[in-house]
Amino acid sequence: MSGGVVADPAPPRIRFTDERIEMAHGAGGKASRRLVEGLIAPLFANETLAPLADAAIFPVAACRIATTADAFVVKPLRFAGGSIGELCINGTLNDLAVSGACPRTIMVSLILEAGLETATLRAELEAMAAAAARAGVAIAGGDTKVVEHGACDRMFVTTFGVGVVDERLRLGAQHVRKGDRVLLSGPIGDHGITILLARGELELEADLRSDTRSVWPMVRALLDAVPDGVRWMRDPTRGGVATALNELARDAGCAIALHEDAIPLRSEVRGACEILGLDPLHIANEGQFLAVVAERDAQRALEAVRAVAGGEDAALVGTVQSEPARAVVGITGYGGTRMIDMLVGDPLPRIC
Amino acid sequence: MSGGVVADPAPPRIRFTDERIEMAHGAGGKASRRLVEGLIAPLFANETLAPLADAAIFPVAACRIATTADAFVVKPLRFAGGSIGELCINGTLNDLAVSGACPRTIMVSLILEAGLETATLRAELEAMAAAAARAGVAIAGGDTKVVEHGACDRMFVTTFGVGVVDERLRLGAQHVRKGDRVLLSGPIGDHGITILLARGELELEADLRSDTRSVWPMVRALLDAVPDGVRWMRDPTRGGVATALNELARDAGCAIALHEDAIPLRSEVRGACEILGLDPLHIANEGQFLAVVAERDAQRALEAVRAVAGGEDAALVGTVQSEPARAVVGITGYGGTRMIDMLVGDPLPRIC
Repeated sequence: MSGGVVADPAPPRIRFTDERIEMAHGAGGKASRRLVEGLIAPLFANETLAPLADAAIFPVAACRIATTADAFVVKPLRFAGGSIGELCINGTLNDLAVSGACPRTIMVSLILEAGLETATLRAELEAMAAAAARAGVAIAGGDTKVVEHGACDRMFVTTFGVGVVDERLRLGAQHVRKGDRVLLSGPIGDHGITILLARGELELEADLRSDTRSVWPMVRALLDAVPDGVRWMRDPTRGGVATALNELARDAGCAIALHEDAIPLRSEVRGACEILGLDPLHIANEGQFLAVVAERDAQRALEAVRAVAGGEDAALVGTVQSEPARAVVGITGYGGTRMIDMLVGDPLPRIC
Repeated sequence: MSGGVVADPAPPRIRFTDERIEMAHGAGGKASRRLVEGLIAPLFANETLAPLADAAIFPVAACRIATTADAFVVKPLRFAGGSIGELCINGTLNDLAVSGACPRTIMVSLILEAGLETATLRAELEAMAAAAARAGVAIAGGDTKVVEHGACDRMFVTTFGVGVVDERLRLGAQHVRKGDRVLLSGPIGDHGITILLARGELELEADLRSDTRSVWPMVRALLDAVPDGVRWMRDPTRGGVATALNELARDAGCAIALHEDAIPLRSEVRGACEILGLDPLHIANEGQFLAVVAERDAQRALEAVRAVAGGEDAALVGTVQSEPARAVVGITGYGGTRMIDMLVGDPLPRIC
C-alpha cells in the first residue's frame, strides 16, 4: 500500500451472534457482511475464498473444464447418514466425477427463509466445509439471499462445481459398444428410502442411512485401472438406476440387458419398496455411480472399484446389446424378462 | 457407432405442452426430461449445452479462471425494464465483468413452485436466452428442482458464471492508491426504486425502468483504454454505491471522498427517495459499475466509458484519500461533509 494510504488495512475480526436469520442478512449491507465474515467465511476458510469479491479467481493450465450446477431442496434438511450440507457438496463432486473431471473448486449459493435458526445454518455450513475438506476441494465463494418467512422452506442450496477433465478419457453415449458391461458401484436405493423414512409419514422403520459421499475416489481408481476402457458414467440420483440407463439406451440407440439378481440391494430397501409398491431401480442414490466399460476391461474395472472403501459391493449388472433398441430389459434369475421404464411421476419428492 | 449398436441414435423431438409445472417435472424421470428437452434446451440451444449430462465441458488455454454465483429471488418476477430472467444473466455477467473477466459460460439452476404457469417459466427462459445471446455467451446447462406449492415463491434462479481473466489486469483493493479517482458508469437507484414501485404497495408512480444490462461492453472499453490504470471495480447492487465504497474503504484502509453533486441521479429516483426517507446511495443498481482508476488515466477512462451505449452519463464521483481511514465522506456543493455508512437493515427486500 504505497502512495500514502494508511498502512494497516487488516479488518477487525467480526463475530456473528444473531440467533436467527433475518431479512437484513440478505440485504447486502452491514448485516450481510456480518453473516458472511462472521459465520460463513471462517467455516469455509481457504486460500481461494474471497468472501466479498464478485468472483473467485484461480489459474488453470490449458485443459478441458467441466462445470456443473445443482439445486438442493431436500426435506428434511437432516437425515440418517447426512444432511443437505453434505449432500450439496457430494452431489456436485459426483457430477464432476462421472464427467471424468477432477474437482477443482466449488461455489455455494444459499436461499434462506427469514427466521431460520442460525444453529441450523451453522450446522449445514459445517457439513459443507467438512465434505469439501474430505474431498480436498476449496469452497471458493457463493451468494446468500434471504426471503420472507413462508417464501421458501427453511433453506435451499445451489452448488456449482468446476473440474479439470482427465485428458485420457473420451466419455459419452456415442462411445458405447455392443458387448460392453455395466458396472454399478454398490447397493441402490439407500438415499431415497432413508429420506422417505426421515419424514416420519410412514409406519416404517429401518436401520438405513443415506449413501451420500463423494464417488471420486472410486471413479479415480476405475480410471487409473482402465483409462481406455471406460465409455460412459453417470450417478443415478433422481429417477434412479432405471432412468439413468434408459437415458443411456436412448442416447446411444442401444439396449441394456440388466441382470436384476446381480444388483446390490439391502434387504431394508427391498422390504420398504415392496410395502410401498416402488421399484428400487427408480429410487434415488447419492453415493453410487454407473459405468459402461469395455468387455475386455470389465473384470479389472470391477476389482479396481471394489478395492476402494465404499466400493466393496460393486457389481457387473448389465450388458450392452443392439436390441431392443433404446430400451432397458430386466432379466431375472429364472430367465424371465421385463421392460424397465424411466421413472414416471414423482413418488418421492424433494429427495435431494 | 461401430460395434453393432443400432445406427441412428437421434432422439425423437419432444414437445412440452403442460400448462403448469408439477412436482413430477422435478423428479428426474420422464416428466423432467420433457421439461428439459421440450422447453428449456430448445430455448437455450447452443453447442456447449448438454442438457442431460452431468456437466458441461469446454476447453481453455492456460489462464486465470473467474467463477461467480448469484441467487435471484426478486419480487415481482417482472418489472419495468426487465425481469428475473434478464437480471440473473446480466447480474452474473456483471460480477465477471467487474472481476476483469470476459464471460465464457453460464449455468442456470431453477427452483420452481409446483403450480407455476408454464407461460411464466417460458417467458423467463426466453429472457435468459435473449440476455445471454446479447452478450454472446452460451448457457451451458443447469438444474431444475420443483418444490410443493407454498414451499417457494413462484421461482428462484441461481446463476453461475465462468470467465477468463484479462491478464493485463491486477485488480483489488490492495492496488488502490491515494489520489486515484472513482468512476461511476451512470445514474444510480433506477433498479431498486423500479422494483419498489412494481410492488404497487406505495402511492407512488414514476416513469422509471430497471437498469438491468450487461456492463461488460463498458468495462471492456475501459480496460482497453487504460489497461494499467484500473485498480478496482465493483457493481453496486444490494447495498448500493455507499456499501460498495465502504467495503473498498475498509479493505484498502483508505478514505473515499464522494462528490455528491457529481453523482448521476434521475429526478424520479431522487423524488422517491425523499418521500420514502431513503438514501439513493443505498439503493440497488443492476446495470452500473464503479471503478477506481489512476489519477493520470481518469479523464481517458471517463471518455472511454462515455463512448459506449449506456455509459453516456458516466462521471468521476470520488477521490481516494488517506483520512479518515476506512470511511466514505460525502462532500456537497456547498462544501459541507457527511459520513456515508454502509446500508443497515433492509428497506427494500428481494430486490434481485
